[in-house]
Amino acid sequence: MAKAAIMGYGTVGSGVYEIIKTNADKLTKNTGGEAIDVKYILDIRDFPDHPEPNLFTKDFNDILNDGEVTVAAEVMGGLHPAYEFTKALLEAGKSVVTSNKELVATYGTELLEIAREKNVNYFFEASVGGGIPIIRPMHQCLTANNIKRIAGILNGTTNYILDQMIRRGKTFDAALKDAQAKGFAERNPAADVEGHDACRKIAILASLASGLAVDYSDIDTEGITNITLDDVKYAAQMNSVIKLIGYAEFREDGKIYSIVSPMIINSENPLSGVDGVMNAITVTGDCVGDVMFYGAGAGKLPTASAVVADVVDAVKHAERSKKIMWQKPDGNIMADGDSKKFAWFVRTTDSAENVSKIFGRCEFVDNITEGESAFVTEPLTRSDAESKTGALRDVITSIKILG
Amino acid sequence: MAKAAIMGYGTVGSGVYEIIKTNADKLTKNTGGEAIDVKYILDIRDFPDHPEPNLFTKDFNDILNDGEVTVAAEVMGGLHPAYEFTKALLEAGKSVVTSNKELVATYGTELLEIAREKNVNYFFEASVGGGIPIIRPMHQCLTANNIKRIAGILNGTTNYILDQMIRRGKTFDAALKDAQAKGFAERNPAADVEGHDACRKIAILASLASGLAVDYSDIDTEGITNITLDDVKYAAQMNSVIKLIGYAEFREDGKIYSIVSPMIINSENPLSGVDGVMNAITVTGDCVGDVMFYGAGAGKLPTASAVVADVVDAVKHAERSKKIMWQKPDGNIMADGDSKKFAWFVRTTDSAENVSKIFGRCEFVDNITEGESAFVTEPLTRSDAESKTGALRDVITSIKILG
Repeated sequence: MAKAAIMGYGTVGSGVYEIIKTNADKLTKNTGGEAIDVKYILDIRDFPDHPEPNLFTKDFNDILNDGEVTVAAEVMGGLHPAYEFTKALLEAGKSVVTSNKELVATYGTELLEIAREKNVNYFFEASVGGGIPIIRPMHQCLTANNIKRIAGILNGTTNYILDQMIRRGKTFDAALKDAQAKGFAERNPAADVEGHDACRKIAILASLASGLAVDYSDIDTEGITNITLDDVKYAAQMNSVIKLIGYAEFREDGKIYSIVSPMIINSENPLSGVDGVMNAITVTGDCVGDVMFYGAGAGKLPTASAVVADVVDAVKHAERSKKIMWQKPDGNIMADGDSKKFAWFVRTTDSAENVSKIFGRCEFVDNITEGESAFVTEPLTRSDAESKTGALRDVITSIKILG
Repeated sequence: MAKAAIMGYGTVGSGVYEIIKTNADKLTKNTGGEAIDVKYILDIRDFPDHPEPNLFTKDFNDILNDGEVTVAAEVMGGLHPAYEFTKALLEAGKSVVTSNKELVATYGTELLEIAREKNVNYFFEASVGGGIPIIRPMHQCLTANNIKRIAGILNGTTNYILDQMIRRGKTFDAALKDAQAKGFAERNPAADVEGHDACRKIAILASLASGLAVDYSDIDTEGITNITLDDVKYAAQMNSVIKLIGYAEFREDGKIYSIVSPMIINSENPLSGVDGVMNAITVTGDCVGDVMFYGAGAGKLPTASAVVADVVDAVKHAERSKKIMWQKPDGNIMADGDSKKFAWFVRTTDSAENVSKIFGRCEFVDNITEGESAFVTEPLTRSDAESKTGALRDVITSIKILG
C-alpha cells in the first residue's frame, strides 16, 4: 500500500482524489499490485462535507514528517509555498508530482537536481498540455530523435477566444467575456491572453528537448490582445487561421530559438484544426518527422488523470530516480532573436506602390477593409521586418506566418 | 556497452542501424550512460558495400548463442521465422523489440508471457502507428483512465488513396496506381486495401487497452475497395470525409466491440484532417476525454526511431520486465456485432417515398448522381441496417458514420 498526499484541494486536487478513489482497481493493477491510498489532503480551507474529512490537514509538517508517505501530488499552483514544500519533500526522500507549470518553469532545474540526488522522482506530465501525454512521450518514445522543433497550441483560453473570433465572428473583447462567462478565462486574464502561461510551457518543453534549462524570461512573448476580427478574416481568406503558438527551434550549433507569438497557420498544418479549449503540440524529430499530440489542455479530470499517472509511475519507480532531467547550461544557450526568419502578414494604409518599393517581393492579399494594403512578405528577420514596416506610413497589423 | 542485434536488413532494419550510428551520443545519454553497439545484423542477403560487412550473419544461432547480446530488434516482418526467433531469444533471456504487427497480433500473448517469465522485455512501439508514440503513452500516461474507445487511421496506404480521391478527384483505381508508383502501396495491395493491416493494429491497441488478448480474426473487417468517387463527393457535401477506421469500444460489462470499416467522419472530428500517408489515433479515456496522436505511420526512419526507442528502453530496463502486458481472456470478450448502432449513409435508385416508408426518420442528402436517393439513417444496428437496406430496390452504397 503506497501512501500519498494531495497538496491543494482545488479543481485539480479534487480530481486527483476522485480518480484515485474511482479507478482504484485499475491503478493497483498498473502499479504492479500496490494500492494507492490517500493519507493526507493539505488545504487551508475546511471541507466539512467531504466523505473523508479526517484526511484533511492544514499543517504541511504532517505530510513531511510521516515516514509512510512516499509520494505527494502538488496541485496547489503558484510559486510559494509550493516551492518550499516540494523542496522539503524531495529532500526528505519523497517523490513529488505536479501540475504546476509555473513552479517547474521557475525552479524545475533545482528540484530535478534534488530529486536525482535523493534518488526519488519529480514528475510534471500535467504541467504542459493538461491530460495530453507529452512529457513522457517526448522523453521516452522520441528518445532516438534529435528534436528539431516544437510548435504548440499550449493555452486553451486563448485558443477558445481565437476560435470564437474565427468561427463565430466575435470581437476579441466579446470572445474574452464569453470565455470568462464559461469559466475558461480568469477574471484577470493577463496570464493567458498575454502569453505568459504558454511561455512557461514552451520553456518546460524546450528544456526537456534540449536537456538544458531554458529560462522562460529569455523567451520573447507576445499575446493575442492585438488580434482583431479583421486579422482573423484576412487569415481565413488565406485559407489559414491565427493561433497563439509556443515555438522552439533547436539548432545544429546547440542554440535554441524560442518565442511565444500569434501566428498565421495554413489549413494544411494539423495545428490549424485545433478548436475550442483544446491544446496540441507538434514535435519534429530528425527521424520521425512531425508527430502531434492533441487533447484537453486543462480541466479537472483531464489534468488530474495526468497527475495520477505520475503518481502511479512514482510508486512503480519508488527508490529509483527516472532522471527525466535537464541541467543548468554553461552560458547563454538562446539563439539571437534576429536569427530566425518568418514571412509576415502586414496591413497598412500605405499604398501598394510604397509597399513594393519598401519590401520588394511580396504577395498582396485582397482587401477586406477599404483603403489599406494587405500583403505577405518574404521571410524576414525581426529587425528587417521592423525596419521595413517602420518605413511604411503606418502598420495596422503585422503577424508572423508559421512555415 | 549494450550489445544489440538487428534481425532483418530491409527498410526498417537499415533505418535502425542508421539511427544507432548517427544518434549514438544521444542514445548513450538516454540509456543513462550505456552505449548501444550493433554486434550482429541477420539477413539472408549479402550487403558487400555495407560499411561494416563483418556485422552480417546468415545464422540466427550466432545471435542466440552470444551471451553478450542482450537485446534484438526483430524487423524481419512476417510470422515465420520471426516467431521462432523471437521466442528463442526471449527464452534465452534476451529482450526483443519489434515493428512486426502481424507477429504481435498473432503471437503477442504468448511472447509477452515468456518475456514476463524470463524477466526480460518484449516491446512493440513501432508495430502500431510507425513512429507515433502510442503504445507507451496509452500504457503509462493514460494509466489513470479507463479507456472507453479507440478510433484510428491506422493504415497510411489506404489513407493516401482516400486522400487522393478526396482532394484530387481520382478514382480508387487511379489513386491505387498512384500509391503503387510512389511506393506507398505494395504490388499486391490486399493487406492494406482490404483492411487486414489496420485490423492487426486495432487488435494490438484493443489488447493493450483492455489487458486482454483480442484475437484479430474476431474483428469484422471491411476495406475501402468499394468506395467510389461519388461516395467521396457525397461525404464532402456533408462536410465530411471517408476514412478507413480501426475502431474499438470498451463496454461497462467488460465486452469489447471492435471493427475495421470505412467511415464517414465529420470535419469537426480531428481525424478528418489527417491527410496523405499520415496516421492518427484518438483514444478516449473516462477522465482525459479524447486525446489524439498523429504522425507518420510508416517509413524507414520514423518506424526505425520507434524501434530504437524500444531498444533504449530495453537497455535501461535490462533484467527488469516492464510488464506491458495482456493476458488470454477466459471465454469470449467480444461484444456481439449487433450491439452497436451506427448512423448509415445510404444510396439507392429506389424512390424517396420508399426510403421514408422503410427507414422512417432519415435525412436526405442532395443528389449528386441523377436518379438516386441518398440519405442518412437514424442509428441502427448492423442487422437492422441490413434488413432495411435489403428492403430497398437496390443499394449503391452504405457507409457507417462515426459518431
